[in-house]
Amino acid sequence: MSYETLTHTLDDGVLTITLDRPEQLNAFTVTMADELERSFREVNDNDDVRAVIVTGAGRAFCAGMDLSVGGNVFGLDESKRPGLADMEDLADPRIAQVRDTGGRVTLAIHDCRKPVIAAINGPAVGIGATMTLAMDARLVSEKARFGLVFGRIGIVPEAASTWFLPRIVGMADAIDLMLSADILDAEQTVARRLANGVHDTDELLGAAKELADRWTKGRSPVGVALTRQMIRRNSAYEHPVEAHRVDSLAMFWTSVGDGKEGVAAFLGKRAAEYQGRASQLPDFYDEWLSRGQ
Amino acid sequence: MSYETLTHTLDDGVLTITLDRPEQLNAFTVTMADELERSFREVNDNDDVRAVIVTGAGRAFCAGMDLSVGGNVFGLDESKRPGLADMEDLADPRIAQVRDTGGRVTLAIHDCRKPVIAAINGPAVGIGATMTLAMDARLVSEKARFGLVFGRIGIVPEAASTWFLPRIVGMADAIDLMLSADILDAEQTVARRLANGVHDTDELLGAAKELADRWTKGRSPVGVALTRQMIRRNSAYEHPVEAHRVDSLAMFWTSVGDGKEGVAAFLGKRAAEYQGRASQLPDFYDEWLSRGQ
Amino acid sequence: MSYETLTHTLDDGVLTITLDRPEQLNAFTVTMADELERSFREVNDNDDVRAVIVTGAGRAFCAGMDLSVGGNVFGLDESKRPGLADMEDLADPRIAQVRDTGGRVTLAIHDCRKPVIAAINGPAVGIGATMTLAMDARLVSEKARFGLVFGRIGIVPEAASTWFLPRIVGMADAIDLMLSADILDAEQTVARRLANGVHDTDELLGAAKELADRWTKGRSPVGVALTRQMIRRNSAYEHPVEAHRVDSLAMFWTSVGDGKEGVAAFLGKRAAEYQGRASQLPDFYDEWLSRGQ
Repeated sequence: MSYETLTHTLDDGVLTITLDRPEQLNAFTVTMADELERSFREVNDNDDVRAVIVTGAGRAFCAGMDLSVGGNVFGLDESKRPGLADMEDLADPRIAQVRDTGGRVTLAIHDCRKPVIAAINGPAVGIGATMTLAMDARLVSEKARFGLVFGRIGIVPEAASTWFLPRIVGMADAIDLMLSADILDAEQTVARRLANGVHDTDELLGAAKELADRWTKGRSPVGVALTRQMIRRNSAYEHPVEAHRVDSLAMFWTSVGDGKEGVAAFLGKRAAEYQGRASQLPDFYDEWLSRGQ
Repeated sequence: MSYETLTHTLDDGVLTITLDRPEQLNAFTVTMADELERSFREVNDNDDVRAVIVTGAGRAFCAGMDLSVGGNVFGLDESKRPGLADMEDLADPRIAQVRDTGGRVTLAIHDCRKPVIAAINGPAVGIGATMTLAMDARLVSEKARFGLVFGRIGIVPEAASTWFLPRIVGMADAIDLMLSADILDAEQTVARRLANGVHDTDELLGAAKELADRWTKGRSPVGVALTRQMIRRNSAYEHPVEAHRVDSLAMFWTSVGDGKEGVAAFLGKRAAEYQGRASQLPDFYDEWLSRGQ
Repeated sequence: MSYETLTHTLDDGVLTITLDRPEQLNAFTVTMADELERSFREVNDNDDVRAVIVTGAGRAFCAGMDLSVGGNVFGLDESKRPGLADMEDLADPRIAQVRDTGGRVTLAIHDCRKPVIAAINGPAVGIGATMTLAMDARLVSEKARFGLVFGRIGIVPEAASTWFLPRIVGMADAIDLMLSADILDAEQTVARRLANGVHDTDELLGAAKELADRWTKGRSPVGVALTRQMIRRNSAYEHPVEAHRVDSLAMFWTSVGDGKEGVAAFLGKRAAEYQGRASQLPDFYDEWLSRGQ
């Protein structure tokens, strides 16, 4: 299948997904949402990919929802007035149009079996900003701008950003960032703990690739996938005993799998040659990921 | 209805609630708890208020529970020995006397439809400190003191502060602040990430007003109320899909409401004129807020 | 009962537990897990102990799981292939061998009635690092090294560390620390907010003792135990009203107990003489702690 709004480049195990509507500053559309969601789901089955970088074509990262489509910009059927009960079954086709499109993308990022790194090369505004909060790291170039601007146009943050943001910066800063709705420059994203350091524009993708390698090169893809998900899920449980249950399973399955090779290689002072594949995770994984949904 | 322990001043949409027992350093009483709880509930219905500032009359912010009432300072009926099961129904009049008074206030602050800013003008000790942890920001003057001093008198933190504090400063600092039970000066509250910067005494209220304006002036009161609550509630769910459910509803309702005007004003390069009122939030709001209680 | 792998020293109410296999750099074994778990459970009943320090004998803190035992280093029965359902009843003897040994230790630390301070005197690697994340503070000497190295040997983090770590450093740093799997030096542990400051080697235990005293000396052991647990448990609830329920009970029970003496001593400007014992906590405590398990 081909993509209208994205470009995919796979190099040495790192997939770069480029938001590719440069004339529109890579503004987000329902098609882009569909294509991003599909991309992250496909990455799970592609063992040639060990990490993902998301960046923007041209001078922007993503300028937010494409407002040029006019009146019904959010694509909502106004005759429906949904309540909490309607949202229980997200697969119900009747509520498909009500579901926040950004959230479909960030839930796919959250569930991804590979680390996802945002390389923010220019303005990231609205969904352009919130989609990166679900990623594992945010690298910014000197030209990056980061705007959680929802408050400026009478709407609310989306893409599950109110779940992710307080986990990254704490609740007090999350409230201030969301209510202020300012557009931060690159240095400010670092000061607010949204990004780790400012890179020269022409070094941004190299830095993202370096981080992807640091996290995944020569590592067990099963170990990476489980670890990433354990941090995201275990930390949200009410009691650490739930983490203990998952730890026990994940440690068991890696110990009879890639962990055997890892320990042998460590003791033998040689590089490990892992056989595990992220497309084939232990039996408990799918059951675990569906929990709480 | 009149107030014994508080003064209310409404100016340009910002309500300043002054803890007003200056001779007693604004020490907290059951009457003050009742009046604060009532104030925050009333703010929800008053569309003339877009933000709230809480400060203290005279040289203190709030010196903590009024210990001058003597022996039974916490007002507890010692013949009752409540257990966990007794606490299930908080509306049960038999446990009314057992309920922590500070918690009644901070739960009302948590549920408030308007942002609440603490302008800490002097000593804030015990409940004087913990009540501010439920607020959206803490601004301190050079004379501020901040004391989570419960450990010094053989009792425990209250006002749901153990829910709020780790969300602001992280768990390790929360443990240290609570167990050390020290009284911090203004610079230390900033260093410990409890406040954002130290203001001159005569500039404190101005800075609080400026922040209130920055968060709410010219903004949709519906958008502000929903956003504030989404950060507080969505971040505490076990799975981001719960945030996605709420996002979808909140985005739907604002998109058919103030968001329409917001987008139109943005595209038309004019100031938005929002019609929404925080006293009339979307249908799902009350159902959502009662969830988990 | 005697200990093979630990040394216990009780001085002025502070119990120092020394991981004591210096020839093996205090590498972790199933025996050490059993003995640590037993130690933390016994501390709960020993009113002579008001705080615990954990450190290592010789030049290491703990070099991680003892890999010298060879092939089946994790002691797992590979014929069992457990799933999520198998983990429900952790007391089931059939899954005892599957349970992560590190998690048994950190759950005991989490439930401890006394604050636990890590005095990291040298390399802390693997379980040597993760066990400290469940403790209340981490103090490091200049010789400390801190390595969440699981990713280097094809396995996953354990000991419920993915529950604790994001609470200390936030989710973005937690992901980076776990996926990078680097060994940090002492200064880096401070920069990453894992520790509070670097101490000279010969001053490390003194600093740990000073912190233990600051948190517990002259304090109500009931108040300390409840406060420590309230921060750990209340903050993880979905809604602050759950914290309010616990606060109300904890405040009631301390107010009719040590809080009475605490307030009287404060008003009388004298030192308090608390009668409460951590071995005898209020009735609701055990019911509360078993909740969510």
